[in-house]
Amino acid sequence: MLQLYFWPMACSLASRIALLETGIEARYHLVHLRSKKILETGADFWAISAKGAVPVLMFEDGQALTENAAVLQYIADLRPDLCLAPAFGEPDRYRLQEWLSFVSTEIHKGFLFPTFWYTDDAAKASARERIVQTVSIVAAHLEARQHLVGEGFTVADAFLTWALLLLGPAGIDLAGWPPLADYLRRMQQRPHVQEAVAIERELRKTVTF
Amino acid sequence: MLQLYFWPMACSLASRIALLETGIEARYHLVHLRSKKILETGADFWAISAKGAVPVLMFEDGQALTENAAVLQYIADLRPDLCLAPAFGEPDRYRLQEWLSFVSTEIHKGFLFPTFWYTDDAAKASARERIVQTVSIVAAHLEARQHLVGEGFTVADAFLTWALLLLGPAGIDLAGWPPLADYLRRMQQRPHVQEAVAIERELRKTVTF
Repeated sequence: MLQLYFWPMACSLASRIALLETGIEARYHLVHLRSKKILETGADFWAISAKGAVPVLMFEDGQALTENAAVLQYIADLRPDLCLAPAFGEPDRYRLQEWLSFVSTEIHKGFLFPTFWYTDDAAKASARERIVQTVSIVAAHLEARQHLVGEGFTVADAFLTWALLLLGPAGIDLAGWPPLADYLRRMQQRPHVQEAVAIERELRKTVTF
Repeated sequence: MLQLYFWPMACSLASRIALLETGIEARYHLVHLRSKKILETGADFWAISAKGAVPVLMFEDGQALTENAAVLQYIADLRPDLCLAPAFGEPDRYRLQEWLSFVSTEIHKGFLFPTFWYTDDAAKASARERIVQTVSIVAAHLEARQHLVGEGFTVADAFLTWALLLLGPAGIDLAGWPPLADYLRRMQQRPHVQEAVAIERELRKTVTF
């Protein structure tokens, strides 16, 4: 069985949404991101991944895949019939990769990560300088579209949904970008998004960062 | 003809290396990253891409693809016979995506970007805190390997080569990680890496950041 290592409401939420969308059963392991311990067993998470970061998707053979941009494509490709990613070779597959990269570099690593992990206020402020431009790029793209790529929900939407859910706690109010607020509302109407968020919000209450 | 918008020695160098490896002819446009002007014509780069960032790969139909993680895969797939990326559907394709993501999030956006763009010293220091761990992960992976993915050169190596070339100017001495210093020497022996770096180092002398 596939196993997903996660921290509740971290970017591994996108991987959980993707897994729920596929309907493929998986085991979920809560990893404490500061202590790097697997909560259930107390085992050392460094032994699972030298990166010490989530998501980690572990295959039956014990190999681990990291990085949402890879993990999400892997999960989508398990069920090509569901079109959670454009097929390999379709031009839109590169659009999917483009958005996975933009969310992970500009929103996550460029803004959310420094906001939640940096301890220095000036450093947080530096990371904040570009976020309005970044968010505006996504909002403009979604002005006349229902989804990031093509005509249906893809794993890029799972990733962006997670990122948008964290922008509020990071001090960015989506009300300033109606296309984004609308998009997030639509995404939150998807049953598997609701389920994933409900599970992780409950779990989040049980652990201290 | 394909067109690549670049700034000399920015991460678009990886795209140039990949294009040279394919042997596909392209036009190269130098974009000034601060003024956002295309040097040759003085035209506004914002009109090409709302992100204002390189690389931008423009297709014959005028559509633009951004983000190295997507651009490099697109270029590799133009010449599947050269194996610059594992074929779609191969397990190693996800390894390629994993490394493209790691280089762009942890090395580029997590460290090189703040080092060269942040103006606040405390902010630069915050970005620096994790770079030794990050570089060590790559070094450990390359200890018993010649390339990042599989047995041959891929576009992930083009991307990492660029990142390693910039670590020195960013204050990280690769001499501390012999597998990485060796790897970079090997990569720099590739004719197309040499050619791309020689071209961009010359061009870099002609412009002020």
